[in-house]
Amino acid sequence: MKIVAADTGGALLTEDYEPVGLIATAAVLVERPYRTAALSVARYADPFNYDMSGRQAVRDEAFLAVELAREVRPDVIHLDSTIGGIEVRKLDEPTIDALTITDRGKEVWKDLAKDLQPLAKKFWEETGIEIIAIGKSSVPVRIAEIYAGLYTAKWAIDYAREHGKATVGLPRYMKVEIRPGKIHGESLDPREGGLFGEIEAKTEGIGWELYPNPLVRRFMVLEVWKE
Amino acid sequence: MKIVAADTGGALLTEDYEPVGLIATAAVLVERPYRTAALSVARYADPFNYDMSGRQAVRDEAFLAVELAREVRPDVIHLDSTIGGIEVRKLDEPTIDALTITDRGKEVWKDLAKDLQPLAKKFWEETGIEIIAIGKSSVPVRIAEIYAGLYTAKWAIDYAREHGKATVGLPRYMKVEIRPGKIHGESLDPREGGLFGEIEAKTEGIGWELYPNPLVRRFMVLEVWKE
Amino acid sequence: MKIVAADTGGALLTEDYEPVGLIATAAVLVERPYRTAALSVARYADPFNYDMSGRQAVRDEAFLAVELAREVRPDVIHLDSTIGGIEVRKLDEPTIDALTITDRGKEVWKDLAKDLQPLAKKFWEETGIEIIAIGKSSVPVRIAEIYAGLYTAKWAIDYAREHGKATVGLPRYMKVEIRPGKIHGESLDPREGGLFGEIEAKTEGIGWELYPNPLVRRFMVLEVWKE
Repeated sequence: MKIVAADTGGALLTEDYEPVGLIATAAVLVERPYRTAALSVARYADPFNYDMSGRQAVRDEAFLAVELAREVRPDVIHLDSTIGGIEVRKLDEPTIDALTITDRGKEVWKDLAKDLQPLAKKFWEETGIEIIAIGKSSVPVRIAEIYAGLYTAKWAIDYAREHGKATVGLPRYMKVEIRPGKIHGESLDPREGGLFGEIEAKTEGIGWELYPNPLVRRFMVLEVWKE
Repeated sequence: MKIVAADTGGALLTEDYEPVGLIATAAVLVERPYRTAALSVARYADPFNYDMSGRQAVRDEAFLAVELAREVRPDVIHLDSTIGGIEVRKLDEPTIDALTITDRGKEVWKDLAKDLQPLAKKFWEETGIEIIAIGKSSVPVRIAEIYAGLYTAKWAIDYAREHGKATVGLPRYMKVEIRPGKIHGESLDPREGGLFGEIEAKTEGIGWELYPNPLVRRFMVLEVWKE
Repeated sequence: MKIVAADTGGALLTEDYEPVGLIATAAVLVERPYRTAALSVARYADPFNYDMSGRQAVRDEAFLAVELAREVRPDVIHLDSTIGGIEVRKLDEPTIDALTITDRGKEVWKDLAKDLQPLAKKFWEETGIEIIAIGKSSVPVRIAEIYAGLYTAKWAIDYAREHGKATVGLPRYMKVEIRPGKIHGESLDPREGGLFGEIEAKTEGIGWELYPNPLVRRFMVLEVWKE
């Protein structure tokens, strides 16, 4: 099974560990044995000017996933939105009203569906590939989250080169290590069966430290500075 | 404390990782230090013809647990049903109605109680041993779940010998290793304090691979084939 | 960031693993990198005469945290009560009524606020330090919980010296090791990023064993005896 998934994560933090805005959306191609990505792409947001409502994230993820899927032709696309694994191309108003989610969730999805339902329908007509809103149950979505953390670390390195230092929060229970020429990341939850990722990056002349975010248990902070 | 517990788990999967039916019910005898089973027995279901409603599982578990308990005379029997640790022999209609569970849960238990309440009452009168519906809180129930995973792997080996290969899903966050003459299994959740199990099995001439189920985070897939 | 936090944990258990009462309240000073305490203090309860309603615990924690904070002057005090990170000095009746917690929770906090709101207000006026009810999200609160477990182990050693043996339950998913001259403790949840603690203790002539509490998954039992 070849699966493309996308997720957004990683936040720029203030010195007091308050989130300023999200940093990276990653799309990944995941194949058997489903522990890492065979391919990944990222799009960076502007964390200083970010809509924290969450609506922007799902939209960005869908468009980036479709872009990657056009190239690699997976069997299915997984989005990080937990509405029961439904096919996005089928999300008309009556279907959304029938979902067992909160009223606010329905409003959000009615708004999102305006862009995403036509995108999914057109993509399915062209390729036969479904986009499903499977959410946290999907392992490829979790791998995309780990890659969002890796690209967040890369963003932090670039930011530190320009401004001296950067403090970012990684996605939930994952760690990164900045190694020569690359960034390595892993899930900290062994129940997930060993999920990890790696991307190339210019890492020379960079110092870093990883530690628990004191205000948000199970989330790690990465500090990066120019040496 | 000597505890007998039972649980059902492990599923035959299609090539697309869809569950066909459950495979194994295991009953275990657990003694101090409560990390593995001193004794285990299993009963196999027919996964191609399985009632996935969950009702059959609790019934099978109760009868298998009582069968083991007749031999080993534990202090108590634990069943995997979370209705507050209540004694099953006391489950008459007014008691079930007073439980703080969903209406659907009450209907299920009224139906189950028809068989299980007399079983529990008779067993208690003969032996003084209570059957309690303690559920996920019980460590012996979790150990029974790990053994259900071990017997599922054994079933998969036998199935692969006959049909060439088998793909099964293990119970939540556990792994197995097929070793010479035995199958070893462990919880992947270190918070549980090191729970594990082992059963004997003919393993020669068998190849295997374990990897995350891409559709169900924190669950592993075991593929087994004849070499 | 310098944070003082407090938590209560560890229970004396019967031979059947039933809790008799809680044992230790710990307050800790936590500084970057937020993995352990720079300083800790403890107060012992009488487990044979303990109000298990939970109200006493929060009160004890607040007073012990303020006592430690007077000395070490942190930036903020974290209490283990999940009411949205609100400042305790602002908890008047209308504010409590506006919280999104259960009605029972509101009654408990109206009662607690009688003591804690004046304490927090006075301490803030004197020092400018806020006490916030941040709860489980706080890493320092989790570190305080681990120290409550360490002091529980110390209490068990002292109790065993006098009465021959003691069986105690540790706070959720943590382990302890009794080493020469000290007690070491660690979180069993790797998602927390490596939280641990250590306190000095007279440990000679003491035997011990740690194992899963069979009745409460993810909690460990410590048995200690005079050798």
